Amino acid sequence: MKKIKEAESMEIGIIGLGKMGLNLAENMVDQGYTVYGMDVNPSLKDKVNAKGIQFAESIEELLSDFSNQKTIWMMLPAGEITEAIFQKIKQHLSPGDRIIDGGNAHFEDSKRRGAECEEKSLHFFDVGTSGGVSGARSGACMMIGGDAEAFAEIEEIFAAVNVADGYLYTGPSGSGHYLKMVHNGVEYGMMQSIGEGFNVLQHAEYDFDMGKVAKVWNNGSVIRSWLMELAFDFLTENARLDDIEGVIHSSGEGQWTVQEAMKMQVPVPVIAQSLMVRYSSMDKEKYGEKVAASLRNGFGGHAVVKKED
Amino acid sequence: MKKIKEAESMEIGIIGLGKMGLNLAENMVDQGYTVYGMDVNPSLKDKVNAKGIQFAESIEELLSDFSNQKTIWMMLPAGEITEAIFQKIKQHLSPGDRIIDGGNAHFEDSKRRGAECEEKSLHFFDVGTSGGVSGARSGACMMIGGDAEAFAEIEEIFAAVNVADGYLYTGPSGSGHYLKMVHNGVEYGMMQSIGEGFNVLQHAEYDFDMGKVAKVWNNGSVIRSWLMELAFDFLTENARLDDIEGVIHSSGEGQWTVQEAMKMQVPVPVIAQSLMVRYSSMDKEKYGEKVAASLRNGFGGHAVVKKED
Repeated sequence: MKKIKEAESMEIGIIGLGKMGLNLAENMVDQGYTVYGMDVNPSLKDKVNAKGIQFAESIEELLSDFSNQKTIWMMLPAGEITEAIFQKIKQHLSPGDRIIDGGNAHFEDSKRRGAECEEKSLHFFDVGTSGGVSGARSGACMMIGGDAEAFAEIEEIFAAVNVADGYLYTGPSGSGHYLKMVHNGVEYGMMQSIGEGFNVLQHAEYDFDMGKVAKVWNNGSVIRSWLMELAFDFLTENARLDDIEGVIHSSGEGQWTVQEAMKMQVPVPVIAQSLMVRYSSMDKEKYGEKVAASLRNGFGGHAVVKKED
Repeated sequence: MKKIKEAESMEIGIIGLGKMGLNLAENMVDQGYTVYGMDVNPSLKDKVNAKGIQFAESIEELLSDFSNQKTIWMMLPAGEITEAIFQKIKQHLSPGDRIIDGGNAHFEDSKRRGAECEEKSLHFFDVGTSGGVSGARSGACMMIGGDAEAFAEIEEIFAAVNVADGYLYTGPSGSGHYLKMVHNGVEYGMMQSIGEGFNVLQHAEYDFDMGKVAKVWNNGSVIRSWLMELAFDFLTENARLDDIEGVIHSSGEGQWTVQEAMKMQVPVPVIAQSLMVRYSSMDKEKYGEKVAASLRNGFGGHAVVKKED
């Protein structure tokens, strides 16, 4: 069941309608694009169609929606899923068609995918996307790797869905995801630094109102930032944070930044430390701490903390 | 030689007309205050007077300029200078007069100074000032400790010289400088994280335009911040930074944040690491590295790097 398309409206197919994908798709609809969407979860269909995005239940159906040159934008978790979908759509596309990976793939994978696409005369773009869900919906920030001439042909999309000056063509395949990887590494360090500061305040002899602190730090101070604005929001809501655990997940880019730095022997002590804090926050077993406590017990007879029965 | 004062214009005396003090004094003149300024450097006189600030060459002269209740704002390097000037002006003031320390004193000193002033029925305010020189000139961010009622009497000054929502009454004496101390600790970590990210990019296999990177990171990304705006400015000017040394000075607040965290046994690994990086950047001798290299030579015969004659 094809939509009647306006000849002048460029068609884009988005695969992966999670928080980022669906918001980006809506953003594109607002910008006048004809957007087809595909997700493995068929229950999204009505919700997606209601937003002016034509929902497809399979890649084949998605591809059949196009009347012309195909531009497929993947918004998927990095790794196996991205690879599987990439290989599948690559098979179905024709020379001149485009694959955009807006997820957080490792730049080495993106380099390889760029080369695989080049062999088939397809255009591949690795697009690091920042700005969170609200950014995807109403103006994101994108770092785009790929062929420069091919980029020029679709630059208008990036101008449309990002904030002003919020996109950068970064160079050959892999460079977009490389820059996003490092962006996230920087983000880890900034986040951890902010977290530590509030933790000192939480234990201080003064009774600071954390929401008000975040507010004043956002108005005229050196550390004013979007991260601090986010902190203002949740610290104003519940400064005690007593409804969540102190566990910080990570999705790979911080780890890759440190691995890349180690490969090049470039020191990144703060980014590495913020990654270690995340790992430590996930480590319920604390085997390393148990070993250290037992060593202390061994040489000095210092008590270890026994588990309660 | 006294200026003819308007009865309704509140008088403020600023001691220390360095970059921060002079800009803040100009800001106050713009806001309609009668501002007297004092600095140990008499050659500033003409420049200062030309800005509508009545220059005094001594504290005695500065104090004699006041026709009414005195409000003295110190904008001085923390430590001995602040202490000497504080003790001197404290002797000359009368009950109800005010001393504001807008510098970066240690909060324990500010607590003590607050208590000393209370004994003499003077009002003391410890004011952490952020926003840099441009902030001092046209809208800063201030964190203010001191007596709450006394603060209410001069709150209008803080509303006048800061950006909107850019000041916070933080509680009793010491709390303003405490909050500014932690602010600067957070700043250290954020700065180091940004520095490390650009260092990875500088060594990367891609040829990133650092100025353009900072620009795109400032538009819609999660790490957009005033620090990144500053990075945009200098990286656009000269991304190679080949005209400066990689030496990072510090003025104490980062160190104090780590000391305070250690006193409370609160972990601040990233802030501490960023402080260590600063120390390391200052350490030309690298004696610790020499010891480690010699140990490596000792057990494994690994070559040490000999100095050239």
